[in-house]
Amino acid sequence: MPLKTREEYLESLRGVKKRVFLFGEEVTDYVDHPLIRPSINACAMTYELSYKPEHEDLLTTFSSLTGKKINRFTHLHQSAEDLVKKVKMQRLLGQKTGCCFQRCVGFDGFNAVDSVTYEMDQELKTDYHQRFREYLKYVQENDLVVDGAMTDPKGNRRLNPSEQADPDLFVRIVEKRPDGIMVRGAKVHQTGAINSHEILVMPTVTLRDTDRDYAVSFAIPADATGILYVYGRQSCDTRKMEETLIDVGNPNFGGQEAVILFNDVFVPWERVFMCGEYRFSGSLVERFAGYHRQSYGGCKVGVGDVLIGAAQAIAKYQGLEKVSHIREKIIDMIHLNETLYACGVACSAEGKPTPSGTYLIDLMLANVCKLNVTRFPYEIARLAQDIAGGLLVTLPSDEDFASSEVGPYLNKYLKGVDVYRTSCRQRLLRLNENLTMWAGAVAYLTESMHGAGSPQAQRIMLGRLANLDYKERLAKEIACIEDEEEKKV
Amino acid sequence: MPLKTREEYLESLRGVKKRVFLFGEEVTDYVDHPLIRPSINACAMTYELSYKPEHEDLLTTFSSLTGKKINRFTHLHQSAEDLVKKVKMQRLLGQKTGCCFQRCVGFDGFNAVDSVTYEMDQELKTDYHQRFREYLKYVQENDLVVDGAMTDPKGNRRLNPSEQADPDLFVRIVEKRPDGIMVRGAKVHQTGAINSHEILVMPTVTLRDTDRDYAVSFAIPADATGILYVYGRQSCDTRKMEETLIDVGNPNFGGQEAVILFNDVFVPWERVFMCGEYRFSGSLVERFAGYHRQSYGGCKVGVGDVLIGAAQAIAKYQGLEKVSHIREKIIDMIHLNETLYACGVACSAEGKPTPSGTYLIDLMLANVCKLNVTRFPYEIARLAQDIAGGLLVTLPSDEDFASSEVGPYLNKYLKGVDVYRTSCRQRLLRLNENLTMWAGAVAYLTESMHGAGSPQAQRIMLGRLANLDYKERLAKEIACIEDEEEKKV
Amino acid sequence: MPLKTREEYLESLRGVKKRVFLFGEEVTDYVDHPLIRPSINACAMTYELSYKPEHEDLLTTFSSLTGKKINRFTHLHQSAEDLVKKVKMQRLLGQKTGCCFQRCVGFDGFNAVDSVTYEMDQELKTDYHQRFREYLKYVQENDLVVDGAMTDPKGNRRLNPSEQADPDLFVRIVEKRPDGIMVRGAKVHQTGAINSHEILVMPTVTLRDTDRDYAVSFAIPADATGILYVYGRQSCDTRKMEETLIDVGNPNFGGQEAVILFNDVFVPWERVFMCGEYRFSGSLVERFAGYHRQSYGGCKVGVGDVLIGAAQAIAKYQGLEKVSHIREKIIDMIHLNETLYACGVACSAEGKPTPSGTYLIDLMLANVCKLNVTRFPYEIARLAQDIAGGLLVTLPSDEDFASSEVGPYLNKYLKGVDVYRTSCRQRLLRLNENLTMWAGAVAYLTESMHGAGSPQAQRIMLGRLANLDYKERLAKEIACIEDEEEKKV
Amino acid sequence: MPLKTREEYLESLRGVKKRVFLFGEEVTDYVDHPLIRPSINACAMTYELSYKPEHEDLLTTFSSLTGKKINRFTHLHQSAEDLVKKVKMQRLLGQKTGCCFQRCVGFDGFNAVDSVTYEMDQELKTDYHQRFREYLKYVQENDLVVDGAMTDPKGNRRLNPSEQADPDLFVRIVEKRPDGIMVRGAKVHQTGAINSHEILVMPTVTLRDTDRDYAVSFAIPADATGILYVYGRQSCDTRKMEETLIDVGNPNFGGQEAVILFNDVFVPWERVFMCGEYRFSGSLVERFAGYHRQSYGGCKVGVGDVLIGAAQAIAKYQGLEKVSHIREKIIDMIHLNETLYACGVACSAEGKPTPSGTYLIDLMLANVCKLNVTRFPYEIARLAQDIAGGLLVTLPSDEDFASSEVGPYLNKYLKGVDVYRTSCRQRLLRLNENLTMWAGAVAYLTESMHGAGSPQAQRIMLGRLANLDYKERLAKEIACIEDEEEKKV
Repeated sequence: MPLKTREEYLESLRGVKKRVFLFGEEVTDYVDHPLIRPSINACAMTYELSYKPEHEDLLTTFSSLTGKKINRFTHLHQSAEDLVKKVKMQRLLGQKTGCCFQRCVGFDGFNAVDSVTYEMDQELKTDYHQRFREYLKYVQENDLVVDGAMTDPKGNRRLNPSEQADPDLFVRIVEKRPDGIMVRGAKVHQTGAINSHEILVMPTVTLRDTDRDYAVSFAIPADATGILYVYGRQSCDTRKMEETLIDVGNPNFGGQEAVILFNDVFVPWERVFMCGEYRFSGSLVERFAGYHRQSYGGCKVGVGDVLIGAAQAIAKYQGLEKVSHIREKIIDMIHLNETLYACGVACSAEGKPTPSGTYLIDLMLANVCKLNVTRFPYEIARLAQDIAGGLLVTLPSDEDFASSEVGPYLNKYLKGVDVYRTSCRQRLLRLNENLTMWAGAVAYLTESMHGAGSPQAQRIMLGRLANLDYKERLAKEIACIEDEEEKKV
Repeated sequence: MPLKTREEYLESLRGVKKRVFLFGEEVTDYVDHPLIRPSINACAMTYELSYKPEHEDLLTTFSSLTGKKINRFTHLHQSAEDLVKKVKMQRLLGQKTGCCFQRCVGFDGFNAVDSVTYEMDQELKTDYHQRFREYLKYVQENDLVVDGAMTDPKGNRRLNPSEQADPDLFVRIVEKRPDGIMVRGAKVHQTGAINSHEILVMPTVTLRDTDRDYAVSFAIPADATGILYVYGRQSCDTRKMEETLIDVGNPNFGGQEAVILFNDVFVPWERVFMCGEYRFSGSLVERFAGYHRQSYGGCKVGVGDVLIGAAQAIAKYQGLEKVSHIREKIIDMIHLNETLYACGVACSAEGKPTPSGTYLIDLMLANVCKLNVTRFPYEIARLAQDIAGGLLVTLPSDEDFASSEVGPYLNKYLKGVDVYRTSCRQRLLRLNENLTMWAGAVAYLTESMHGAGSPQAQRIMLGRLANLDYKERLAKEIACIEDEEEKKV
Repeated sequence: MPLKTREEYLESLRGVKKRVFLFGEEVTDYVDHPLIRPSINACAMTYELSYKPEHEDLLTTFSSLTGKKINRFTHLHQSAEDLVKKVKMQRLLGQKTGCCFQRCVGFDGFNAVDSVTYEMDQELKTDYHQRFREYLKYVQENDLVVDGAMTDPKGNRRLNPSEQADPDLFVRIVEKRPDGIMVRGAKVHQTGAINSHEILVMPTVTLRDTDRDYAVSFAIPADATGILYVYGRQSCDTRKMEETLIDVGNPNFGGQEAVILFNDVFVPWERVFMCGEYRFSGSLVERFAGYHRQSYGGCKVGVGDVLIGAAQAIAKYQGLEKVSHIREKIIDMIHLNETLYACGVACSAEGKPTPSGTYLIDLMLANVCKLNVTRFPYEIARLAQDIAGGLLVTLPSDEDFASSEVGPYLNKYLKGVDVYRTSCRQRLLRLNENLTMWAGAVAYLTESMHGAGSPQAQRIMLGRLANLDYKERLAKEIACIEDEEEKKV
Repeated sequence: MPLKTREEYLESLRGVKKRVFLFGEEVTDYVDHPLIRPSINACAMTYELSYKPEHEDLLTTFSSLTGKKINRFTHLHQSAEDLVKKVKMQRLLGQKTGCCFQRCVGFDGFNAVDSVTYEMDQELKTDYHQRFREYLKYVQENDLVVDGAMTDPKGNRRLNPSEQADPDLFVRIVEKRPDGIMVRGAKVHQTGAINSHEILVMPTVTLRDTDRDYAVSFAIPADATGILYVYGRQSCDTRKMEETLIDVGNPNFGGQEAVILFNDVFVPWERVFMCGEYRFSGSLVERFAGYHRQSYGGCKVGVGDVLIGAAQAIAKYQGLEKVSHIREKIIDMIHLNETLYACGVACSAEGKPTPSGTYLIDLMLANVCKLNVTRFPYEIARLAQDIAGGLLVTLPSDEDFASSEVGPYLNKYLKGVDVYRTSCRQRLLRLNENLTMWAGAVAYLTESMHGAGSPQAQRIMLGRLANLDYKERLAKEIACIEDEEEKKV
């Protein structure tokens, strides 16, 4: 069976010899680095839960390519039900990790590349789709984590790739060879890149004729020659390396982003899925973004569940859980969180098959989903801070709690309702802080804002998909205006 | 075939001899009264569209009771797909009428009464379910409009029915007889009551032992002896009686609410579906409200489409449709409107069968849907007013436009972009005004607030359905707190 | 003493022989027309309160021109304290009328024209300022209501006045004569025009060289030859003409807007305050708008007080005034309302003298004030509807309450808490409805949006006044970036 | 002259031998500790600017007690103008430090204690006021920083002080002696405690007869025997101790909170300002909170200016500063920020003298101010993150930028518009991150929420100060309801 266990995943990752830089130094054993490991743990949860009978229905399915049981993260959606299960699986994983588990970008990449290469082949008589499906079988068979790499650095945002002062600010083909292509550039904000076995590269914007060299999609082992990774700093990152685990809030799990540098990297033809066909770049971006905007209607909701639970427990420790204004704030949090979930479910349930047979979410509703995700987690976090009280940001270090000189005083004075342990209050305040200000907030807030495209990207899609002409006609019909009557002759 | 045409509906309604009061007088021919007719027209659209091939899939289906083709408004939902189609049908009707079409309350009542009577019979060995299904067959066969009557006047909101100074402030059984029951009381805010052939009465709150006489559900012809209707006033109601139709904004359609007075009305046993079984009142209220909260994720979205279309056309007439802040406001409107739709779809797609086989929406998501409906239409309306400009509320009367003395000046000065007729701008401003301040706003705003329960009712449901204990456990698991560790010994 | 009583005002207005059109007909006695009179009553309150000792300090002051006691509405602000008192007076009048009292536009016009004409004269050696001050003395001596007329129809919003297909879409000078000028055009949305003795015309946009003929400001008697008025329709306007006064919500007061048509009207030179000096049009618009944006921080707050009071009383009648979610909503309303007031006070307290000695509000804060006014009343109104319950829009007519057949039932069933009269609930629901949907909403909502300039106009001012360069420098200083270091050499 | 220079302040602070704990260890030289020093620097700015001629008018004034020139932070407000200048000074300091400068709590404490002790003496014939004024002269003469210590730990929030399981959860008098009193307890969230020469203790809630021992106010040297400090952890606190200063965002300034433990501390009578007079505790809390709620209308606005400036510069570096949606977001930030300022100014300008002659802000408007502060900075921060883009949270460490292996790539790929240095973008992204997620966010967001009382505290005040009866009467007057008519006989 292709399903890897958590341990097999970790072991296999140790075999991927990536070159990772952190604080200006190359990291020798990234899998066990204390600052990196929590993010690998989060990703490992996608393996761990696939072996739990109670979650089997969400975490696993049967491959449409091989018929074998596979991890859902490597699946091509075969129905609207598959799309809905994806969202439910993501909510579950958010609940279990309290952070980003970093395996969705590849998953969303597979589904986007699958349908677009099919359509390319249909129109252009290329064989990208076949190549891609072969590749995906390999991924499914080996239960791999693949980084779906889309975002280029972009430089001056008002210029197209080929107009930039530096031509490398978007990943590009620098050479075509008989056996493959040579690429150069960088991908930024690469969530989970260090946790991955492979990288699936896609273009990041709709391209034009003059940007033909930037229309490139391919897959490559994460430790291919010429690839370097620079680990991104997160709020409170070094806290993960402190000895006490309480102050880190989420002791076991975390997220990760990296810059991936492609310093003239070779890709053999069988791993190339787009090479100059710029007219298809728009579809690929739109569909990948669409799937990923759907994703946030699951994962962030799961993290929201954790934060709501933490807020509720903190309120209880402080004797406030039945006070009306606290209850109303908890309800506000639930309301916002479930609205996000509703959008995630709706765009999935309204999914339709593409020509390749792979199901695509409803793009309008997926963009609506993500646009709400750019706002509601911030409000949920604000409410969580409101409920927590000021202690959230003034709590002394865990070492002080352990100190013989001041520890007893802290335990005495920072107790809430007498029956509850001060240490539980301390732990949940730190978790709340993690999710609203620290590393957890990187994923729960800022990534909710910018991941899968910044809010303006969704707004542009909404304007494009809204069919305003049809709506205008509806209004005129009600107001008894004939189309020909509108303009004077 | 049981499907009535629009004309057959109107004709059949003329046969229902209701006693309707308006402005202190009894109305003799309510079907043709100019103030009432627009609301009947809106309801008639549910018949008209059932004959349009392009809408057949949404407007009609096959009865689970008889196998015959029926209007969907008389259907028991047999699948999640049925629930989704309901929402799509409601959006369509909102688009076609620009108002409330008033046939959903009965539809939602059927589905709620169906599953609750089934469960009553299972537990209590009563035969309410059989009675109800017989009744529903009659409704389906005759394609009837049925008013789902729930809301009682309630008096002092802090007191239960039997605690009120006046025992009649909730509908109650005043006498049980061998052949039936005698009831007294009133139902308020009865949307579409005057358009209906029948009334289906349900209790309005969860009842207790002492309120046993208020636990009553039954169906009755709308013109039964002892029933009086008092028509509610709406903003700008009398404008419908003015000669020019432009100033009414929506010349053909409108909404309607009435107070129904039950002055000791007799109901035969075969039409009684609950009679004292107070323990089931809660489920009945919760399910009816749930279905109706789902409904708003369809109908109000359709009206929102009309308002967005009107705003877009007005912007065009004023030369502003490409100005960035106007475009952003249109996108804001779309975003809010589609979020409502997403909630309507989601609670439907997640629907599950009840023991009777009839499908019930996901209650959490249906309440989330309605809670958003209590807010977003207000914001959409605000944006529509922003885009429209001040002329929305300062436009002179249509008679002034027709006046030989000032009409030419108005047509000259109130023109926007030269190529468009002033009269089209005038008509769409009036439609915008209708939807944001007038009769249309009664349905689009205030009914969105209070219909199917005021926002606090949804909030209470959210708090109850949220499973906060589970969320607390999730947080503690992440923070490495064992349950037994929480409290000191 | 120049102060007129209420009666003297009404009498004097009867002497102004305006030509007013309404429903396509000329109105013969506009002062006593039932649809118009409530708006005149509202304006009359500015006279009535000037005779109340408890309000004397706000309503009256001593003229800076003559030293005589005058109505504050004719005053030139001589201090920041004067500006603050203006706001307090406006809040008081909003409280007493529950609507727009329509005398501020002239007041704001006086202060804007005063300082701008002073600066014109200083630079251009014209004598506009002297002319204007003579005119203002006349206004003060006779305690006149003057319509400050700014808004032109504007046609295609993307074109300047001289670029329009019709050159008359902005008021313009069509002829200069030895004794004065001839003007043509229209002013729209003219709040209180029919209540006024005089009209003070100003340009509505910043003008350029090519629009020189549109740079015109002047004062003129409201019944000058060539002027016609067309009365604007308001939501529920005809309800004022019904016999029962309850259903109108605010039985005594209301607002008013009109289109003023200038069909080649002659203005003698002594009443002309700008004639082609387009470079000063921007200042005039900016200052008038600034004063008027301040105004809304007073008047709308007063109306907000009335609506909060109505909501509180309705809650009490329904037994809900101590329920926590109702209390929180009332507090939300207060919070929003007082934030508006804070902005009104702040822009006043930070007022500074212009070269003419007349005080100008802080323009940044006045624009902030108005921008909040375009939002908060809508939210306050939404909350008021939330508290009121659905009866707000389903209440039968007062004639039904008086009917012998159904009246007793309505009084029985629509009672709230037993001790309160149903009629009081009925009256306050109608007042709430008036303010949130009817004629009151025209002023409280839509005028709050568009009066003194639509929200985008305030936003543009905010962007212009914000001194972003200074803020950038602050950030760089904190981040230790020298200006010269920013750009590479 | 009593004004200390920055250096004199630092030197004097070295003379205060506080016992400070951090990470479980006692800190020997807290003034020069790298994690603590930035907060001392921020406080030192209140000294530094007092010597700048351009800021003299805001930073200094003349003592009402001695007539000497003093730092405004030690002043008793003598006019509304003084109150307005306070807000302006705070905005300036926020702009110069980008954080909390921590000297306001004492300042606000002085003014609150001054008027309340005056009123105590008037009523009770005590001599607290004289004692306090002597103390304040000492503070003014020596230009001291005084920690205004109000917030007790509170334990179970639903219980009064004397009802708690542990009687020490609020600071209390444990012994009265001939020469003074002995106190025990703790104060939490003590902003700037470590930067202070003195502590001014006040009770934290309105107390009742049974809580008499908790009604205690006094001043004491910050290094008095029995006092211990435990430093609170902040988000990214240890980053201040890293060698590179760029990654800390705000390299020079920061905030600070500490728990102060009072382990049976002796206070001589001349430093005691309340001792059991529980009836005055409410006024003291309300006034201190009122002044401090005003403060936030200044300081947070200054920090907001820095964040807006950073957002604008980042947009420029990315080529986006003229894109309409970016401009609109900057305008949204300005709008929110200036609304806060308007509230700060308004509550000051409406200040009135207390019986002691010291001016008190308008309490309603000060509470409105703070309630907005609990929301708007969160929204401003969200917008700042929106504008910044994802790089905000994925930027590699400064060591990576300096690395010879990956540094050149980072400088190449993370450049925005070609002409600007990557390092400037890097620095401002870090400043943005500091203010929205790190130590800066502790002050800008969470302290804005909870400092001077959590939002519910302000809401309760709003409800209490709103005079709802008066508002009800206004509504009834408009609706023509007489008071006697309301209830049936």
